[in-house]
Formats: sequence, structure tokens, C-alpha cells
Amino acid sequence: YFDSYSHFGIHEEMLKDSVRTKAYQDAIRGNAHLIRGKVVLDVGCGTEGILSMFAAQAGAKHVYAVDSSKMAENAKQIIEANGFQDVITVIQGKVEEIDLPVEKVDVIVSEWMGYCLLFEAMFDSIIYARDRWLRDGGMLLPDKAELYIAAIEDAKYKEDKIHFWENVYGFNMSLMKRVAMFEPLVDTVHPDHICTSIRPLWNVDLLTAQKSDMQVDAPFELQAIRNDYVHALLIFFEVGFTQGHKPLWLSTGPHHKSTHWHQTVLYLNDVLTIAKDELIQGHIKIFPSSTSKRHLDFSLNYQFDGEVTLISSQLAPEFIDRLSMDSPTKRSTRRSHIG
Amino acid sequence: YFDSYSHFGIHEEMLKDSVRTKAYQDAIRGNAHLIRGKVVLDVGCGTEGILSMFAAQAGAKHVYAVDSSKMAENAKQIIEANGFQDVITVIQGKVEEIDLPVEKVDVIVSEWMGYCLLFEAMFDSIIYARDRWLRDGGMLLPDKAELYIAAIEDAKYKEDKIHFWENVYGFNMSLMKRVAMFEPLVDTVHPDHICTSIRPLWNVDLLTAQKSDMQVDAPFELQAIRNDYVHALLIFFEVGFTQGHKPLWLSTGPHHKSTHWHQTVLYLNDVLTIAKDELIQGHIKIFPSSTSKRHLDFSLNYQFDGEVTLISSQLAPEFIDRLSMDSPTKRSTRRSHIG
Repeated sequence: YFDSYSHFGIHEEMLKDSVRTKAYQDAIRGNAHLIRGKVVLDVGCGTEGILSMFAAQAGAKHVYAVDSSKMAENAKQIIEANGFQDVITVIQGKVEEIDLPVEKVDVIVSEWMGYCLLFEAMFDSIIYARDRWLRDGGMLLPDKAELYIAAIEDAKYKEDKIHFWENVYGFNMSLMKRVAMFEPLVDTVHPDHICTSIRPLWNVDLLTAQKSDMQVDAPFELQAIRNDYVHALLIFFEVGFTQGHKPLWLSTGPHHKSTHWHQTVLYLNDVLTIAKDELIQGHIKIFPSSTSKRHLDFSLNYQFDGEVTLISSQLAPEFIDRLSMDSPTKRSTRRSHIG
Repeated sequence: YFDSYSHFGIHEEMLKDSVRTKAYQDAIRGNAHLIRGKVVLDVGCGTEGILSMFAAQAGAKHVYAVDSSKMAENAKQIIEANGFQDVITVIQGKVEEIDLPVEKVDVIVSEWMGYCLLFEAMFDSIIYARDRWLRDGGMLLPDKAELYIAAIEDAKYKEDKIHFWENVYGFNMSLMKRVAMFEPLVDTVHPDHICTSIRPLWNVDLLTAQKSDMQVDAPFELQAIRNDYVHALLIFFEVGFTQGHKPLWLSTGPHHKSTHWHQTVLYLNDVLTIAKDELIQGHIKIFPSSTSKRHLDFSLNYQFDGEVTLISSQLAPEFIDRLSMDSPTKRSTRRSHIG
């Protein structure tokens, strides 16, 4: 986590992600009456400390902006350049190791979400900070997180991605099809590709969650909204700011403006020829990889009673797919679909 | 190196980079009369072993395909699927540690080049393999590498990239301008942006180079081809297959079809208002970072006697820029300029 996010380009991408930044701005501004005169802890303040500055603008008595990266020094300078140095104290260190000159804080704000919510997410630090520093009845921004699932038609991309390997400069690399399908893809999908219901898959209340809650082991049932072909499942997340004056959700779903998180696409071994109202039932697990703390493993099991077109009998003897997210592959080619 | 390149998406991108793959195909096919009946070593054969299969198709007596990554197992299976298992032996291991059942090889083929040629490049392994395994008078594919430099007009992107920081959700983050300029950018630049001569900066003969030769410390002189503004320097590389029947060059320059290497853009602190025929003289160093083996540091010093528009006096007291390439930032927004 620490290495990859100290990279400058990523901070620029996050700031330019107006859905992300504006959701936090709205949540903090909209609850200024609850933040005024309060002590705020910003977990992972990043290079620029923008969430801390939002809190200071909202009238916080004091803000502790914590980040383990050396880029915290930048945040400090930016905070000074904007005249907030008396209100915001930047502390470089892991939230698990730092000390604060207060007993408890009233509000914890953090932007901790990774791809597919859980990839390299800063969960453990949030839970630690909550248990150690948040007063009883204090406010977490955000305090809720939810994953959604749907099925998508994606023939064109699957063709490019999978059939490409059948003839590569005259060589048969069909073996790579299986590898290609193993990797969840981080991509922005146009909502027209969704051909089933969109269903909640999993949710967590960050005010009470424990570290062990931070994995998914959940059934799903999707109903086709039209006759179509299903090539992949789509997963996306929302986080909620629900403790304040009015609940506010930051959605990374395909019906909203695209974010730097995009969505996550899991290709199926099979192509399902689905008729309107038919059901896909399944079960999905998303959990930290046993081989690497930074990886995320996906396990998918599904049943479908309609027509199944196998890509290759070799690939799909049973309806179980296992996927692993390593360095997420982003498809820039499709990002223009949603602006 | 080993971690990042075992990522599947990168292999797909490389194979789909037809400039890269076809250059190797042409170099191997075009010299089939020199490869027929010979022993070939493929250093870093990757997931798919395609260069080894090109060599086998060209009639090699035997090919040793070496890769340190676990993905070598994939290459082995693909090679079997294409019926080359008797000609190609896949060996998983570092080329510095493996043993071959021959005394010397006749040909070494390798695709070792990184961004800006030198970023995470597999130089040391090539030199080791050459000294240990290549017979006297043997053939290296490629055997030459060359860097080029030019200056570009890039007002629009520099505006987006640099001036963005002056007002970020109402906050002044001008400090980040300096950080933004520190990072060389990996990007495909349209040739129309080039406003000076394109000059050779540095070259190396891989048949004789030593590890210590693999850094750049070179002067340059660029002459304006029109009245324009200079915002950045552009660096790109070519590699040459010159030992065979007919010299062949793989170019990653802006006048050729775009490759997955793109080009490298170094923003200047200053904006130079250059008149036709005026000169920019300078000196550039590119060398492994002292803080991390995987990073690449750039040091740039230049003189220009024409008009200089400073972005900020704070930023550019003297004409020295130091830049460091960490995880290269790629700009997908501009990749559509060249197809």
C-alpha cells in the first residue's frame, strides 16, 4: 500500500476524480454543524491533505492529518500555503503507532477504498483508529460500505481478450485464454451492457465491523432484464455517509459518473444465453490472497439452467472460477464510454 | 523487474504491440540463413516464448528459452502446443545462474528494453549472457541501441498538468507543480509537436558494452525548425539488428507507429520562446537512482539565449532540472494521437 500510493500520478488522478473528492466535500460541508468545534482525525491524508482542509473549512476545532508516507511533508506545506497550519497538524506515521495530544476524537474521516473496495484497502487502519481514537457516538466519514453485483454482455471485449490468443503471429496460444480469464479487470462499463438486475452482494457497518468482517462470502441471484448473452459479472461499490444530517452515498457504479476506481469485471468461462426473467444463482468469495497480503482472491460458483455456450470444453468442466487480483489491469480503451 | 513483468496484462500489451513483435519477427526471418542449424539463447522468454518460436521457425538447431519468472511454465506449454518442444528447451531461472548443455551459443535474442530504454531494462543479464554464452563472432539480436532527443511544444498538456494545482477545489496546491514537473512522463507524442531538430543523444554497441556503459552522460544541441514555444524535451530510443543480411531498426520515435514504450517527456521549468534556427544547448544524464535500483534518475542542464518565460520565479532560478522515474506515469489521453 505505502509504496504504490506515494506515487505522484495517483494523487493527481484521485484529486481529478471529482466524484470522489466532491462526495467528501459534500459530506463534510453538509455536516458542518456537526463538525464545528470538534476534533477530527484524517487517516491517510495523502500528499495534499484535502479532506483535512475540508474539515478545517467546516469549522473543526482541530484536525490531525496522519499519513505514513513521506508525502505527508507535502501535505504540511500545502496546508501552510492555505493558512490552516494552526488548525491542522500533520503527523507522519502509521495510525497504529502515532500518539495524539487528545484522548479521543469526535470525527474520523478517511478515503481508504481500493479497487473493488477491498484491493489494497486501508481497512485495518480505519478499524484500529476507530477503536483507539473515536469517542463513543463519534462520526465516521464514511460509515457504510456496500458491494453490488450484476451480469453483463461483453462479447466484443471478450472476443478481443480471449480469442486473440488462438492465433498470435501464427502461433496457438490458447493456453493464455485461461490466464486471461483469471484476472479480474478494472474497467468502466457502460450501463447498457448490464443485462440482469443489479443486486446488493455484501455490506459492512464500519462503526461495528471487525477486521475479520472485511471479506466477502455471499450468495447472489440475478434476474435477466432482457434476452441477452452473459459474458461476465460486474462488481462495484458504494460508500455511505449516513450518520449526518442526510445520508449521502458515493457510488462507483455504471449508472454514475466514472471514478478512478472504475468497476471490476470477472469473466466467466462460459457464455450464458439468458432469456428475460431467467435466473443466475451463485456464490462469491473475495478474500485476501493466502500467498500475498496485497493480492485479492476471488472465488465464484454459479448455476444457470438455461443455455450455456462453452468457449472450450477444456476450460469449463464445472461452474467454478477462481480469480486473483494482483496488479489490477486497467483498460483505458473503454474509459471513454462514460465521461 | 521480475514482479512487474510477470503480470499478465503486460504480456498481452507487448504481444499486441505489433511494431515490437514484428521487428523481431522480421529480424529473425530475414536472417533465417544465419540462424538455420544454429544454437539460440532467448534471454527473458516471457510468458509466451514467441521469440524462441520465431527462431525455431527460422530453422534453429536448438533454442534455450530462459526466464526467471514462474510464467516460464506457460511458455513451455505454449511451445508444446505449437509442436516446438523438441527444438526449444524452456529453463526457469536467472540467466546468471542457469547451466546450458552446450559450451557456447551462436545467437542471443532478447527483448530487454524498458521505458526510455533504460527503465527496469534487462541490460545486466544481456551482458552477462553475452560474455558467458555467446561464441566469438556470434550474433546479438538486437546488437545496437540509440537514444534520440528533441524539444516539443506542449502548452495544452502542461497547462492541464501544471496549472491545475493552482486552484484545487478552492485550495492552493502550487507546491505540487514542482512535484509534477519532477516526473518524466511516458507518453506518445504527435510528431507535429516537435519544434526542433531530432538529434542522436547516446548510443551503445551491445557486442562490446560493459555494465558501466549503460548510463547516459551526454551533451545535446537542438535547433528550432520554426518559431514556437518549448515546454519539454522528448527522448525516445531505437534498437538495431545490424549484424545480419540487412540492418533493421525498431524505432519508438514519434514519426513511427506507436509502441507500448511510447516516448518519454521531460518538462522544463521554463517556457522557451524559440525562433527558427535558434539553439538550445544542454547536457543530460540518465542513471540508476542511488536510492533504488529500480528507479531511473534524470539530470538536465540547458542553455538558451532567446526569450525565457518563467512559470514561476520560485521554480526556476537556474536552468537545472532533476527528474526521477519511479512508477512511470502513462497518459492514456494522448495515446489516440498515433494509432
